Amino acid sequence: MLSNLNSVLMDQQDITDIQQELGKKSLMGLSLKTLIADTDNYLELPLDVPGHSPAGGYAHNKHQLNGKYIDQAGRLFLITGDEKYAQFTTDLLMQYADKYLQLGFHEQRNTNPPGRLFHQLLNEHVWLLYASLGYSCISHWLSKQQRAYITARLFIPLLDMSTVQYDFDFDRIHNHGIWAVASVAICGAAIGQEKYIDMSIHGLKGDDEEGGFLAQISKLFAPSGYYMEGPYYHRYAIRPLAMFAELVHRFRPELDIFNFKDQVIGKTIQAMLSTAYPNGVFPALNDASQTMDIKDEGVVIAVSLFSKHYPEDENLLGMAKIQNQVWVNGCGTALSKAYASKESVEMPCLPSIELNEGRNGDKGAQGFIRMQNANGDISQLVMNYGQHGMGHGHFDTLGLTYFNNNQEVLREYGFARWVNVEPKFGGRYLDENKSYARQTIAHNLVSVDAGCQNNFDVDIADNKHGIPHFFVGSGKVQGMSAYAVDFYPGVDQQRTVLLVEHEQLAHPILVDLFRLSSEETHQYDYSLQYQGQIIRTNINYQQHQTLNTLGDDFGYQHLWNIGQGQAQDTTLVSWLQGQSYYTWLSASSSDDTLFFTRSGASDPDFNLRSESSLILRRKAKNSLFANVLETHGYFNEAVEASLEARGKIHQVNIIGFNNNASVIEILGDDINLTVMVNNDPNATSESQTTIEFNNQSYSWQGFLAVETNNTKRS
Amino acid sequence: MLSNLNSVLMDQQDITDIQQELGKKSLMGLSLKTLIADTDNYLELPLDVPGHSPAGGYAHNKHQLNGKYIDQAGRLFLITGDEKYAQFTTDLLMQYADKYLQLGFHEQRNTNPPGRLFHQLLNEHVWLLYASLGYSCISHWLSKQQRAYITARLFIPLLDMSTVQYDFDFDRIHNHGIWAVASVAICGAAIGQEKYIDMSIHGLKGDDEEGGFLAQISKLFAPSGYYMEGPYYHRYAIRPLAMFAELVHRFRPELDIFNFKDQVIGKTIQAMLSTAYPNGVFPALNDASQTMDIKDEGVVIAVSLFSKHYPEDENLLGMAKIQNQVWVNGCGTALSKAYASKESVEMPCLPSIELNEGRNGDKGAQGFIRMQNANGDISQLVMNYGQHGMGHGHFDTLGLTYFNNNQEVLREYGFARWVNVEPKFGGRYLDENKSYARQTIAHNLVSVDAGCQNNFDVDIADNKHGIPHFFVGSGKVQGMSAYAVDFYPGVDQQRTVLLVEHEQLAHPILVDLFRLSSEETHQYDYSLQYQGQIIRTNINYQQHQTLNTLGDDFGYQHLWNIGQGQAQDTTLVSWLQGQSYYTWLSASSSDDTLFFTRSGASDPDFNLRSESSLILRRKAKNSLFANVLETHGYFNEAVEASLEARGKIHQVNIIGFNNNASVIEILGDDINLTVMVNNDPNATSESQTTIEFNNQSYSWQGFLAVETNNTKRS
Repeated sequence: MLSNLNSVLMDQQDITDIQQELGKKSLMGLSLKTLIADTDNYLELPLDVPGHSPAGGYAHNKHQLNGKYIDQAGRLFLITGDEKYAQFTTDLLMQYADKYLQLGFHEQRNTNPPGRLFHQLLNEHVWLLYASLGYSCISHWLSKQQRAYITARLFIPLLDMSTVQYDFDFDRIHNHGIWAVASVAICGAAIGQEKYIDMSIHGLKGDDEEGGFLAQISKLFAPSGYYMEGPYYHRYAIRPLAMFAELVHRFRPELDIFNFKDQVIGKTIQAMLSTAYPNGVFPALNDASQTMDIKDEGVVIAVSLFSKHYPEDENLLGMAKIQNQVWVNGCGTALSKAYASKESVEMPCLPSIELNEGRNGDKGAQGFIRMQNANGDISQLVMNYGQHGMGHGHFDTLGLTYFNNNQEVLREYGFARWVNVEPKFGGRYLDENKSYARQTIAHNLVSVDAGCQNNFDVDIADNKHGIPHFFVGSGKVQGMSAYAVDFYPGVDQQRTVLLVEHEQLAHPILVDLFRLSSEETHQYDYSLQYQGQIIRTNINYQQHQTLNTLGDDFGYQHLWNIGQGQAQDTTLVSWLQGQSYYTWLSASSSDDTLFFTRSGASDPDFNLRSESSLILRRKAKNSLFANVLETHGYFNEAVEASLEARGKIHQVNIIGFNNNASVIEILGDDINLTVMVNNDPNATSESQTTIEFNNQSYSWQGFLAVETNNTKRS
Repeated sequence: MLSNLNSVLMDQQDITDIQQELGKKSLMGLSLKTLIADTDNYLELPLDVPGHSPAGGYAHNKHQLNGKYIDQAGRLFLITGDEKYAQFTTDLLMQYADKYLQLGFHEQRNTNPPGRLFHQLLNEHVWLLYASLGYSCISHWLSKQQRAYITARLFIPLLDMSTVQYDFDFDRIHNHGIWAVASVAICGAAIGQEKYIDMSIHGLKGDDEEGGFLAQISKLFAPSGYYMEGPYYHRYAIRPLAMFAELVHRFRPELDIFNFKDQVIGKTIQAMLSTAYPNGVFPALNDASQTMDIKDEGVVIAVSLFSKHYPEDENLLGMAKIQNQVWVNGCGTALSKAYASKESVEMPCLPSIELNEGRNGDKGAQGFIRMQNANGDISQLVMNYGQHGMGHGHFDTLGLTYFNNNQEVLREYGFARWVNVEPKFGGRYLDENKSYARQTIAHNLVSVDAGCQNNFDVDIADNKHGIPHFFVGSGKVQGMSAYAVDFYPGVDQQRTVLLVEHEQLAHPILVDLFRLSSEETHQYDYSLQYQGQIIRTNINYQQHQTLNTLGDDFGYQHLWNIGQGQAQDTTLVSWLQGQSYYTWLSASSSDDTLFFTRSGASDPDFNLRSESSLILRRKAKNSLFANVLETHGYFNEAVEASLEARGKIHQVNIIGFNNNASVIEILGDDINLTVMVNNDPNATSESQTTIEFNNQSYSWQGFLAVETNNTKRS
């Protein structure tokens, strides 16, 4: 079968189709142009196959690049026919074959076994995958001797290392495991030893249970397609997953891989994409950078793959518009043609979605609510009420992020890591990742008794998850609600967040009802991570003349207490972020204290970014933090324009709350809303609720209701 | 003459030419499209002529917008012939005519007299200018009665207010004065009362001395064309200046205005443009925002005007490329055609330039040095060694800013003002503008004895200026040097800054030699305002566990002392800003102390931005701060790339310095430079200097020399 192929992932028809896009302005044409320019730049550099360096060092980076360009040049040889690409690929592979076995293994640095090129096997697998792809494109161009030499001195040792020496690490159910099986399968296909394909698909034991690709894709994802380590790690795993799926499709069509297990491959691609903010950036769920986005190579490949093998999806074309590129492969051609066939492609506007977690979908969920306003701007609310994301998990169950006007408003700090920045601990995770970034107080939720959820214990956290209450994902009032039981000893929590459209307001308002229940009195710190300049507040506060940290542990040691003041009945703080104003209002009392903080304390190496937060502190047994966030106005310093720097909402009052229901009112200029939420875990969308607070009765059907009152207030 | 015109600033040929660009992708076509869309949006709103409001309030903004759209709709009536524009313009003007005299005057709030529409006369003049332009476009379409009504009830009262009631404020030599005369002249032209043109040109007294346009443009600018309040105020004055010049050209061609006084109009436009950073943003010299740029309306008009009336200039076309628009006027058509006639237009690459200050060019200068690297990136160095900018002046003589990689690296804080943000003190200058933004310590230079230059006394400062030493504005080593004598009692200062290309480095290095001389011991604080994340430093420092301010006055009260440590022989700090790394190295000793600071202390209303600086403190009589700033590497978090996070320069040593010369060496990987500077005020480019330090002799010709030594260092 191999002899009929020009590459393990492209046949002659794919290549002909791609050739026809050369010089065109189609997505494939543009992608090809970029690929050629990028590859040609690299071809101008002297060849170099170095030895060892630490992660982020020269040799590490060089091996990585060599792998990447072996693949790119290989593909370009097939597409352009230019032998310079074949020669380059050959020269590099021959040099690696000369040198590979002479390179000793790296010292072991972490739990991942070391390779010969890299400090950890994961990187060796990534390299193997690309080198094998490149080899498969040029192998017919090589002499028999060259093929034998490269196979014997480079690929077989690599395959042995993966499947024999480190067999224990080969096909496990883990995102690294997908890289392992994908690279071994692709290498096996490239050198014509198909046994490697089969052991990669079915596991070393061949039972599809403990390892192998089919077991991995059956077990790694929730029924919703969600990957528990979050989109940052998902997009890293999706790259080998998509390439391996394409290989399986070509070499083992009888497995019907794209329909396997209820189309798990398509579903997990869609789940990953459905987490993204409207600008294509992924919310930093669990350890993640704030900037990873759908232009990542893995996502580009996955979107192209989906487009070829699954039904057309308008939002996917919108994603391609943001990506502005496709995978240079037959799958990419399919996407490029679908895209070109449209008169115009809109930016994606994804529906609201709740993605369940756990192998059976019963370990909580991640909720994504989106609402588009009349100007086309999309507000997106992300709430985490799923599982702890294993070793990368943040202790932020019921945590929230919020995005609109092209920026994250309630922000996730992301990881404490300067990725690939060698002087910053080799670009690895920093101590402050544990001491700050993963702590509860670094997020947008309540910290109890100045501590962390589950006492920052991963084992405890791994055994818990949020409990979904409701998810209403369409209409002018959308919302979701969930519980976190005993994440702090003796304290139960429920959070209900809504997006509510109102004719007086250009953007929906965010209503956030964070309820805590306990038999003992606790200190509750409701915190919001914001960015920008404070514009006004209605509280009397003192800016401190000497700054101290807000605490000694659980992340508090990293927060400077900039200022504090007694809260008001409705505490109000406005800030300006970018070109937009935001006003936060919270029902509170003079017993509460508002803190203004800034991160960067106890940070001897300047590893943390200096970022600001608000913390509303209250001592109580049972308490409801009832908040509204209004998005308003416009500011553009360059043209000196400012509109509506003050919001329209003035007051948030709690009418009442208990285990059955919460009722609040929101008052402002021509705004008078009553928000009613059913808190009973047994409620359904049919439930009739009637409840009395302050001698007034409130009734509604279902989980929630928002009523407009006619009485106007000034 | 008037009867032949369709507008006071456009004749029939201009209009025909503009009409031909409708629907085209030329700069004029695009500008027209934008103008139409913008105007049509406004036409859909209900007409409203409100009463009074404070600055930044509703009525203020509405009057401003009404004025703007009277002009835009007027022009569009002539260009499109669509009577809806004429009707809108008429309706608005009639409503203003109904209401104007019934509106009382605002209360006087500042030194500027109040108007009827606005709190200060300046805004009333801006409004009058636009309303008059719009009226001139539609007056032939009005009935005789309408013309009489608008003239009698609106324009004549406005003209009377300007030229009779507030005659003392009318034609003075000041940037507000240009708005006054331009608006009165244009109104006079629009209603056919040309006496107003003449009194605006020649002054109320008609003597071209104490007032009027000709006196203003003769006296406001230095021979170099520089305006002493800096580009932020210059671009505001240039708008009425350019429009009035066009009017003079049309109505008083005999004055040959564009050749008047050695082409002062063309020269001052060029001077303003020549201050801009490579991205078109103006350096914030004196009180200014950090974001004002050449897309400002005044600059767009000025560039179009220049293009019509002065010889073609490639950099001006480059500016138009950044602006991506032209003035919708005959001048704009000229620019649009010149632009379209080029096969391609490059981004502007302005030459280095020294702009002298003072009416005779003898009050110091502003220096702008630019160097483009092989990748096309332009580094720009700006040094202020001119006059104190009057009431808006910052106390930063010998201050520096530095720009490359599309960002300001050594930063100017800009004004402490949230312009037009009503809850921030009506968008006006804040107390912190005086207490921080204008203080010496807020800038990139040396503060002596924790004080401010000239003791923050404007009167003293207005009588001083920097003294230029040399300016070398071409070649691979460029530089400038200047003195500040007695800006601190008993302390003289000289700063020499160089940009030096080196084959080992992708970007030029910035060499900064800041020399202080005194007979007494003083505390010298050399400060750098940077932005981004500290990546590494070679000093042992302590981050403080409790933060205090760095001082009590002169801006120090606004700086948190984050951490401090003993300096090294060469003190090194690297940081990451955006996608680029920067390393600062300074020759120092263990007697010096380095402070890490952050602004925002003593700021009860959160008026200041939180920004970071480095301060190297030294006690000495005579001292040289010898610094190098290296730009290196690349970081892109989204694609997880980091290259060359460590710079190549390791050491900066002072060989010797005195009143005659300074000699330093710069050592690094394959880098070994000796930098020699002549400090003698009497030096010339022919001077031969020979000086001995540590028994070694150094010789060179001219102001400065940079020599490469062959001895390599590891």
